[in-house]
Amino acid sequence: MKAEACTYVIYGATGNLSRIKLIPALYHLDVENLLPEGSKIVALGRREWDQQKWQSEVRDMLEEKARGGIDKTIFKRFCKRMHYHKGDISQQESYVALANTLTNSQKFPQNQAFYLAISPSDFANTIKLLSKSDLLKEDAGWRRVVIEKPFGYDLQSAQSLQKSIAKYLREDQVYRIDHYLGKGTVQNLLVFRFANTMMEPLWNRHYIEYIQITHSEELGIGTRAQYYDNSGAMRDMLQSHLLQLLTLVTMEPPASMEAESLRNEKVKVLKSIRPIPKEAVHACAFRAQYSSGNIDNERVKAYLQEDNVPENSFTETYAAIKLYIDNWRWKDVPIYMRTGKRMAKAQSIISICFRQPPLQFFRDTHINAPRPNWLLLGIQPEECFRVEMTVKEPGLEMKTRVTSLDASYRQEGDHHTDAYEDLLLDVIEGDSSLFLRSDEVEYAWKIVDPVIQQWAQEREFIETYPAGTWGPVASRAIFDKGSHHWRHCLTPEPE
Amino acid sequence: MKAEACTYVIYGATGNLSRIKLIPALYHLDVENLLPEGSKIVALGRREWDQQKWQSEVRDMLEEKARGGIDKTIFKRFCKRMHYHKGDISQQESYVALANTLTNSQKFPQNQAFYLAISPSDFANTIKLLSKSDLLKEDAGWRRVVIEKPFGYDLQSAQSLQKSIAKYLREDQVYRIDHYLGKGTVQNLLVFRFANTMMEPLWNRHYIEYIQITHSEELGIGTRAQYYDNSGAMRDMLQSHLLQLLTLVTMEPPASMEAESLRNEKVKVLKSIRPIPKEAVHACAFRAQYSSGNIDNERVKAYLQEDNVPENSFTETYAAIKLYIDNWRWKDVPIYMRTGKRMAKAQSIISICFRQPPLQFFRDTHINAPRPNWLLLGIQPEECFRVEMTVKEPGLEMKTRVTSLDASYRQEGDHHTDAYEDLLLDVIEGDSSLFLRSDEVEYAWKIVDPVIQQWAQEREFIETYPAGTWGPVASRAIFDKGSHHWRHCLTPEPE
Repeated sequence: MKAEACTYVIYGATGNLSRIKLIPALYHLDVENLLPEGSKIVALGRREWDQQKWQSEVRDMLEEKARGGIDKTIFKRFCKRMHYHKGDISQQESYVALANTLTNSQKFPQNQAFYLAISPSDFANTIKLLSKSDLLKEDAGWRRVVIEKPFGYDLQSAQSLQKSIAKYLREDQVYRIDHYLGKGTVQNLLVFRFANTMMEPLWNRHYIEYIQITHSEELGIGTRAQYYDNSGAMRDMLQSHLLQLLTLVTMEPPASMEAESLRNEKVKVLKSIRPIPKEAVHACAFRAQYSSGNIDNERVKAYLQEDNVPENSFTETYAAIKLYIDNWRWKDVPIYMRTGKRMAKAQSIISICFRQPPLQFFRDTHINAPRPNWLLLGIQPEECFRVEMTVKEPGLEMKTRVTSLDASYRQEGDHHTDAYEDLLLDVIEGDSSLFLRSDEVEYAWKIVDPVIQQWAQEREFIETYPAGTWGPVASRAIFDKGSHHWRHCLTPEPE
Repeated sequence: MKAEACTYVIYGATGNLSRIKLIPALYHLDVENLLPEGSKIVALGRREWDQQKWQSEVRDMLEEKARGGIDKTIFKRFCKRMHYHKGDISQQESYVALANTLTNSQKFPQNQAFYLAISPSDFANTIKLLSKSDLLKEDAGWRRVVIEKPFGYDLQSAQSLQKSIAKYLREDQVYRIDHYLGKGTVQNLLVFRFANTMMEPLWNRHYIEYIQITHSEELGIGTRAQYYDNSGAMRDMLQSHLLQLLTLVTMEPPASMEAESLRNEKVKVLKSIRPIPKEAVHACAFRAQYSSGNIDNERVKAYLQEDNVPENSFTETYAAIKLYIDNWRWKDVPIYMRTGKRMAKAQSIISICFRQPPLQFFRDTHINAPRPNWLLLGIQPEECFRVEMTVKEPGLEMKTRVTSLDASYRQEGDHHTDAYEDLLLDVIEGDSSLFLRSDEVEYAWKIVDPVIQQWAQEREFIETYPAGTWGPVASRAIFDKGSHHWRHCLTPEPE
């Protein structure tokens, strides 16, 4: 255990994220003996609860979420770490009171992480108030602040958020979470690309025809209309999660696994992406909204019929984009990305289509055009990779077929951890490699901003797709070639 | 069907090869309607059999070997193609008689293939007598002669055999069979290497650390002591079959699948192999003999105790060799080949070990040295390929494991064909791509000749290995590096 004891302060501890993810993750870390000894958890909420009541709330959360049920001894130890603190995030007094508590009692370690599980619109003010109450002063230990996407609403708002954060925090104190990007995904990708000699030589424009990144959800927007209708698929997932995956798949090999090495390479990719000019938005990006349809044989509503969605909304629930990375490795290799709600299947996959081999060698055989090789990386729900190659069909004729070679990262008996466990532990250990640096956020906004702006101006027509489908066929408009197509599944496509 | 009707004349039709392989293969071709209409089969033997007797012999052969049993209608058609001809291969008169039969009856097509299923020592004389009886004259149709390895006993005898053949036949009339090298194997390799973009970029000295080719047998020498003790593993399998596989794995991409294109590339490889000087034989080659041991839990004899093996025999039943191909693609990549009888398992596999990736990136993790990637090509009994790659172990620590991706060429319901079916059909169709050209044979002998000569002189000591094992550990002496090792199996090696 390299980390020192710390105090984890959770703002918004009674909220949804805390209940479902943060408290269970901290508990699981405790089960694994990964919380440094003496570490404390301070739960901040507006409710008038005493320690007893908080503990029983925690028990409720864990009863639902603890893997293998609650272990009595560990739960007792976990409760001892807990401290409920009533406070209002908009009131300076509550920060002062927290500061007093944390300073006056010997029991709270002076390494302190503040997890802001609150509305993004409150980030700036909360950080200001934390600072004004001297909670961010690193006299006796480190102070770190964790915030979760969205980081801004577009380039301008992201820059202005960053400006206010930077007044009170050094960059290395800020931990920007994209929880879709768990440690598992990142490390799987790093090992896959850089611990296998068979991959790196192929990983460039000479051999790769195009790359696809898909994040599809079956869920609709649920009760989140207020947030979602102001955001849309491009902001909500593509600007963040999909661009993160893009950087990991396409970056140059970093010099080390340290945060700055990794993030430098990721930023280099984002900076190398060819900007989409206003007039090319339609050639490079596509949006659509779900109409009613079937998910798991049940009829579901159209987006416009969802609760609290304005009837004239043009917010996209499906966004696709084509990008080019204008560097030596990737020049002219199109990268197609798409994300959507209410699609046919919930999954994140990266699909890499290799170029056709020269075929002159096979003239005078029954091989016309073998399928190109594909490499498929499953991010979720399956963590796996597949390689599709061409082999000869047995028999006297020279014919070929596609064969799929599969490997799952998981084997029987492997331990499952939630992304938040990794991330919360990384904060304690000061490992920011999985967290976004401010320039990453900014460059990601720069890429999608022209599209967002153009779409905002066009309020005449938006394509629709029935819920439970793979999105409109018209999205093919962004493809460079007729042979390019959306790769929906990890299983081989029918011939 | 592109081929014209022909007459297949089998010399040695009552012998083992004919019974077990040739007649069943011709029958199976007939089942598949692949024998050109009007084609005839002339069986030549010394016995005084009539047509009736021959047909009942054929029925016996097929009862054992026909896939799915004998089909009455097809068997009837097959019998109609058959003609038994009594003859002695050493007597000119019998050739003249055959010539009369084939010329005088309208029913024998004038395209004629002579399959010499006879002792190699009779090849030269038989071809001479065929020629003297005008059986090789191509006045009315093509004439082709099929012979099977061994083609000579060393470079000199191979050259002298070739010299006598060349007196009577053009090179394109001679079909030299290496039946270990079926069409399936060759075509699998060609498709694997040249129809997959993911392979060719990796296929060179930059990414491949070493290549291994293993052909191991569980069988001992059986009743073949007379042949085997004069031959040994190096001549019997390594000079022929293993070098053939080597050329297919390492050759440059041919311009087409035509015989001359393929054979030109194969010969280029053989010509590029760095000669082994006399004084380097011990560093580059290794021989051994099996002692008694267990095969399938049964005690089997030592080589020296086998029937008809001289008690002071130094003939190797295990031979290993290290070769370098001194061209731009393969310089300094060692190619280890081995073959043996009475080994732990009967199989032919090609194993390709890739270089270690640069590991500096993984410092400060629990990854010390990931296993190198392996590519494993199963030739027999399984036709498959496997790729071993490194993936991250799930969990919070950065550890890796090896995962094996498998693909079999065969799927359920695939049709099995014997190598001889392909080969006999190729002769009719005039496709000599799978057959050895005389210069191939010669260059292959040039490679192993120094080893054979050196070994012949050393009659003091030969290593032994217990039957049912993978051969002596001392064979490691030929490895370039301590990290190199024999790859026995297609399944991942224990960590």
